[in-house]
Amino acid sequence: MCTTEKPTPLEIQTRILARNDDTAAHNRMHFLERGIFAVNVMGSPGSGKTAVLEATARAFNGRGIAALAGDLATDNDAQRLIRAGIRSRAITTGQACHLDAELVHHELHHLDLAGIDYLFIENVGNLVCPAVYDLGQSANVVVLSVTEGEDKPLKYPTMFAKADLVLVTKIDLLPYLPTDLDAIQDALARVMPDPRVILLSAREGFGIDSWLAWLTKCRSAMEVMA
Amino acid sequence: MCTTEKPTPLEIQTRILARNDDTAAHNRMHFLERGIFAVNVMGSPGSGKTAVLEATARAFNGRGIAALAGDLATDNDAQRLIRAGIRSRAITTGQACHLDAELVHHELHHLDLAGIDYLFIENVGNLVCPAVYDLGQSANVVVLSVTEGEDKPLKYPTMFAKADLVLVTKIDLLPYLPTDLDAIQDALARVMPDPRVILLSAREGFGIDSWLAWLTKCRSAMEVMA
Repeated sequence: MCTTEKPTPLEIQTRILARNDDTAAHNRMHFLERGIFAVNVMGSPGSGKTAVLEATARAFNGRGIAALAGDLATDNDAQRLIRAGIRSRAITTGQACHLDAELVHHELHHLDLAGIDYLFIENVGNLVCPAVYDLGQSANVVVLSVTEGEDKPLKYPTMFAKADLVLVTKIDLLPYLPTDLDAIQDALARVMPDPRVILLSAREGFGIDSWLAWLTKCRSAMEVMA
Repeated sequence: MCTTEKPTPLEIQTRILARNDDTAAHNRMHFLERGIFAVNVMGSPGSGKTAVLEATARAFNGRGIAALAGDLATDNDAQRLIRAGIRSRAITTGQACHLDAELVHHELHHLDLAGIDYLFIENVGNLVCPAVYDLGQSANVVVLSVTEGEDKPLKYPTMFAKADLVLVTKIDLLPYLPTDLDAIQDALARVMPDPRVILLSAREGFGIDSWLAWLTKCRSAMEVMA
């Protein structure tokens, strides 16, 4: 369950986030020591997060990547990713509307990371709450489907302002929608400090090459830093 | 901002919800006294909540209905509804991932309800948090787009368990999607105590008659109770 910013006393919020940040720092160190580029994958319910990860799993031939899949209930997404050929575990949050660093940390004890270069952490489908909780990721990727309309970046600015990359998905549906792709890109440019956008269709494979190139470039940059 | 159930002390949560329930009861009395059927319209970002309300506004010829439109930022939805011919005001929540009874109560002071039979309260796009907060509504309606896939009811069971009606929207897109409508209906039947579902296309007008019939029937039942 979540609460508004207004009625929860500030010191409790601060304490919760400070504890989360400590665990996130621990997770981040764990990933960096192993050369793992960890991605916090966020987006609305049904925006296509799991479909992107299935396409990614196929593109990598299932090698070198693993995933944690967050949802309130069911392990459907983790099972889909296992069927796509990668190691994957579900994190079921019950009532919680987002993952936190402790949930990720706990699940890491059950996930074999040997030989893994990329860990995808698929957050609960939600364009608000997940943006606030650091999980220890190297990058935030927001998945936005063209079926969601043009003004979501303006309506949910915090999520998009924190995105290192936005994947605009389901572009194969554009011929059947009134959606204006330029309007989506314009809205993203207005809220992202450094707009990076890849147009993608997981179903038709469009954009997957650009997405893999982005991942590879980011992981290389991480290794130079380490 | 929202927090997980785990770290927020229980007595604070209870206090927040108790205060919310008091205000919700006040709002509910306000609606009942005026014969207004108030609907809490919930759903994912981009599920088509505003499009359904635009189609509803047109079907009513703009008469007897009004709307409050919640979003973190922008008054885009309220403006769309005003253009569709009805009284509408935006509630911008800032960081909060849902409306609460106090936000609705405050805005009611600025909305002329004379001659209004139906008030639609369009919640923040979110399949988790809005389900927990009573606004004083007469009914919960959840908008679920066929583009979101088949298993959302199973993944977000609290939202759908509390729904009096689910509008399955954007069905004009079905020919272009792998979505199985039977699987959606089956998932809804597994989590809704009393499954009521209307298939709808706001763009093509399909299902609007059934939706208006449901609204009219519910408001009549409310008047009998009063």
